[in-house]
Amino acid sequence: MEISARNGIKGTVESVKLGAVMASIKIKVEDPALITAAITKESVEDLEIAVGDEVKAIIKSTEVMVAK
Amino acid sequence: MEISARNGIKGTVESVKLGAVMASIKIKVEDPALITAAITKESVEDLEIAVGDEVKAIIKSTEVMVAK
Amino acid sequence: MEISARNGIKGTVESVKLGAVMASIKIKVEDPALITAAITKESVEDLEIAVGDEVKAIIKSTEVMVAK
Amino acid sequence: MEISARNGIKGTVESVKLGAVMASIKIKVEDPALITAAITKESVEDLEIAVGDEVKAIIKSTEVMVAK
Amino acid sequence: MEISARNGIKGTVESVKLGAVMASIKIKVEDPALITAAITKESVEDLEIAVGDEVKAIIKSTEVMVAK
Amino acid sequence: MEISARNGIKGTVESVKLGAVMASIKIKVEDPALITAAITKESVEDLEIAVGDEVKAIIKSTEVMVAK
Repeated sequence: MEISARNGIKGTVESVKLGAVMASIKIKVEDPALITAAITKESVEDLEIAVGDEVKAIIKSTEVMVAK
Repeated sequence: MEISARNGIKGTVESVKLGAVMASIKIKVEDPALITAAITKESVEDLEIAVGDEVKAIIKSTEVMVAK
Repeated sequence: MEISARNGIKGTVESVKLGAVMASIKIKVEDPALITAAITKESVEDLEIAVGDEVKAIIKSTEVMVAK
Repeated sequence: MEISARNGIKGTVESVKLGAVMASIKIKVEDPALITAAITKESVEDLEIAVGDEVKAIIKSTEVMVAK
Repeated sequence: MEISARNGIKGTVESVKLGAVMASIKIKVEDPALITAAITKESVEDLEIAVGDEVKAIIKSTEVMVAK
Repeated sequence: MEISARNGIKGTVESVKLGAVMASIKIKVEDPALITAAITKESVEDLEIAVGDEVKAIIKSTEVMVAK
């Protein structure tokens, strides 16, 4: 399956921090840039996301703002 | 002012496509990656976003998904 | 690849309406329910989304509100 | 009042999980489908959302992606 | 029905601009502040949103950023 | 830098509630209105957001719904 989200950025999981409901994932996309994803803890567990995993940060284009 | 959005990715505007209400901006972030932002046409006009501009793609972390 | 978005609802594309930048897709998920997705026109073209296609509506859980 | 959000899916609350700030609500929409909503804990308390409640999952169409 | 979205700001519709798929609504919330909503054209037609209407801008708290 | 987000509402931080990953910020925008922002705890710490701070609630227009 392919998703309509326009943005998929490859990287490596650098940290996983779990709360009770939400989780924060840091994805290293290119030294030294980091992308932060706030997703549910459940997703982290279902996908078994762990430090060192090769993942993609997926972002729908309507969620991207532009600063100039 | 600094914004709470965790993700700011520097790049250069590669294309600006205007609709009646919305606009699609392609931002080259590192060859050959592109980030697509769907923002209002009004924002494009107010910030005078044009091809070649150095901009930042800003993304709130709750909008980032992870695929593995 | 599997995505962290918690919600994937199978259905059939009932209509595709293209604007200049955005597109509106109606997905029949169970008679007579319809889910509306506002995605970029570019996604529609890249995925070649057409009436009758079997697709999934994907929704990040932080985007779902609850009314009671 | 009627809301502009295009998508309202009726279902029954199957579980409510509270964190310190956020909460995760599982809504059974049709056996065996479940929709997950990540909303603030405060909303859960204000609307007194509990297992068995008949609710609607409300989703703005710009938040819906399409996978094919 | 009550919605889990934490933010509802009363105001008056000042302008409605229709595109093919999306629409931009300006809501005057307190002189001279304006809130811009980018919603589907279909919503504008279904709710018959017109200049002078008393409406509410509804915003889920996970969509609000803070700048300081 | 200027951001494409159309909505910036000035106010004062009235409360900051921290969870493990997320945080809820109440911003007083005009007596007695409050805007709730659910942002990462990390943002709160990086921007040192505290009660009494003058801040702006920033909202992308595609995240604003209209109720009538």
